[in-house]
Amino acid sequence: MSNDRILALSGGVGGAKLVLGLSHALPAERLLVVTNTGDDFDHFGLRICPDTDTVIYTLSDLADRERGWGRAGESWGFMEAMRQIGGEDWFNLGDRDLALHVLRTDRLNKGSSLSAVTAEISDALGIKIPILPMCDQPVATMVDTPEGRLAFQHYFVRERCAPTVTGFEFEGIEKAQPNPAVVAALKENPAVIIIAPSNPFVSVAPILAVPELSNMLRKSGAPIVAVSPIVGGEALKGPAAKMMKELGMPASALEIARHYRGFIDGLVIDEMDAELAPAIADLGMEVEVAPTIMNDLNDRIELANRTVGFAARLSGGIER
Amino acid sequence: MSNDRILALSGGVGGAKLVLGLSHALPAERLLVVTNTGDDFDHFGLRICPDTDTVIYTLSDLADRERGWGRAGESWGFMEAMRQIGGEDWFNLGDRDLALHVLRTDRLNKGSSLSAVTAEISDALGIKIPILPMCDQPVATMVDTPEGRLAFQHYFVRERCAPTVTGFEFEGIEKAQPNPAVVAALKENPAVIIIAPSNPFVSVAPILAVPELSNMLRKSGAPIVAVSPIVGGEALKGPAAKMMKELGMPASALEIARHYRGFIDGLVIDEMDAELAPAIADLGMEVEVAPTIMNDLNDRIELANRTVGFAARLSGGIER
Repeated sequence: MSNDRILALSGGVGGAKLVLGLSHALPAERLLVVTNTGDDFDHFGLRICPDTDTVIYTLSDLADRERGWGRAGESWGFMEAMRQIGGEDWFNLGDRDLALHVLRTDRLNKGSSLSAVTAEISDALGIKIPILPMCDQPVATMVDTPEGRLAFQHYFVRERCAPTVTGFEFEGIEKAQPNPAVVAALKENPAVIIIAPSNPFVSVAPILAVPELSNMLRKSGAPIVAVSPIVGGEALKGPAAKMMKELGMPASALEIARHYRGFIDGLVIDEMDAELAPAIADLGMEVEVAPTIMNDLNDRIELANRTVGFAARLSGGIER
Repeated sequence: MSNDRILALSGGVGGAKLVLGLSHALPAERLLVVTNTGDDFDHFGLRICPDTDTVIYTLSDLADRERGWGRAGESWGFMEAMRQIGGEDWFNLGDRDLALHVLRTDRLNKGSSLSAVTAEISDALGIKIPILPMCDQPVATMVDTPEGRLAFQHYFVRERCAPTVTGFEFEGIEKAQPNPAVVAALKENPAVIIIAPSNPFVSVAPILAVPELSNMLRKSGAPIVAVSPIVGGEALKGPAAKMMKELGMPASALEIARHYRGFIDGLVIDEMDAELAPAIADLGMEVEVAPTIMNDLNDRIELANRTVGFAARLSGGIER
């Protein structure tokens, strides 16, 4: 018998949009969010956690919606001065956003865990939903390219995703341990596990690569459903479609289904991709066709409700 | 035989004003500034160097003249966000000022010395005058009070100098070594050594307490002159007068002369204190009476010229 909690796995912007919808569709005590920490890195000695922070800012209504990262109403005095005194300026840090990085780094250096400081900051911002970094140990997503291996933010921000991708490595993953709060939640038989529409290679794969975590997710008994981040052959945001092509797979929701085959019970695809539904079903999973493009809060809530409803209908229906 | 270089010892605001005057009165290659690092401390894991930074900002024309610390045209988004996420907010850090602390801390953590990173940042800001932290090793000025020992910034900023002072300790001073660039400059026989009108107990005393440094200053052969930070029985800025009273000495330029007796060759006092000149001369030092209140740049340049001229007249005139 499951409880009625929903565990969502999320990367940055796209994932956070669905998480925000879930937070409006469900009481706070029914939702937990597991965030990717593979994007995390040190810059000027500050620990930056882009995906976790995007979820924090989105759930506290501080996120900048146009820019897609950082805080709304941000100012840039720090960056201006950093350029003036000769520091690196390829990674933008807003003045307000910096407070989070500075406080977190200080807490970590004094012995706090990433999950503890994430909880502390979430509490201060009035966020009621647990935001759970996938693990407390540092993991670094590396992007392999013909010119060599790049740290993820170097690929993503400094090189603007221009290099061709040949593969990925999650450095440190072998020493990672799943966030204990995630382990505990999985032992309590969550009702549904949702993979948000995040990049499968660099946002979701690191989470699933934490030793034992994907096993625990499957063994929890909850149906696992993903929302395709590919719509009409394109990623709505970020390099997912480009990566797929470079890795030799068509950028399509069908390929997303193939990617998650054997792990997920159902896939939500966009209405634009409705024709792919039979082929996806042939892979041995359920399909839900829904509007997945989230332009406003109503879209987010609607997709959250559709995804939860879809997953709920799968409960217990699949031998795990 | 001396070269024609002038070495100025400086704390924060008052000292930096005279240093700015010196920088206008002299070619850059004739001036070196030694800064107090006893005020330096770690806040959120960032290394903050208030006196050195005040000199940097003053010489690069970035200083806020009204506030007396930090940069002009500063913004406070970082502090606002820090309060919002529950961080300490007793020490104000401007958004632009933060860039300096973040870059410096990163450089120090990666193995740079404080003097190297100070030179790097000074260069980037176009400062031609060497700004030399008194030492590269951390020294922490502690303020003893009846309620216990306080770190200097806790006394100065958090407690707004309210506690009664009973004494000072410069923690770490026994392991400090004089900045090698200062040692080299002293071996080259500077023409004049100037103690800027900074707090004698917490700005100048730490510099003079660096092992061997006061001996080296005396043995350099250059006349040492101080500018009294006490004018008309009051400090123009900061707690110097309050400290003197609490330590049981009258707050007066005469007491400043007694404090530096045996170390300096001459003292510049304000016209307001002209009546004290004979008593100061009786202590065995030369006295220059000059306008020492520096309201504008002209005042700073004028006092710089008066002080250098005074010291030059003492050159070789005193058995050392």
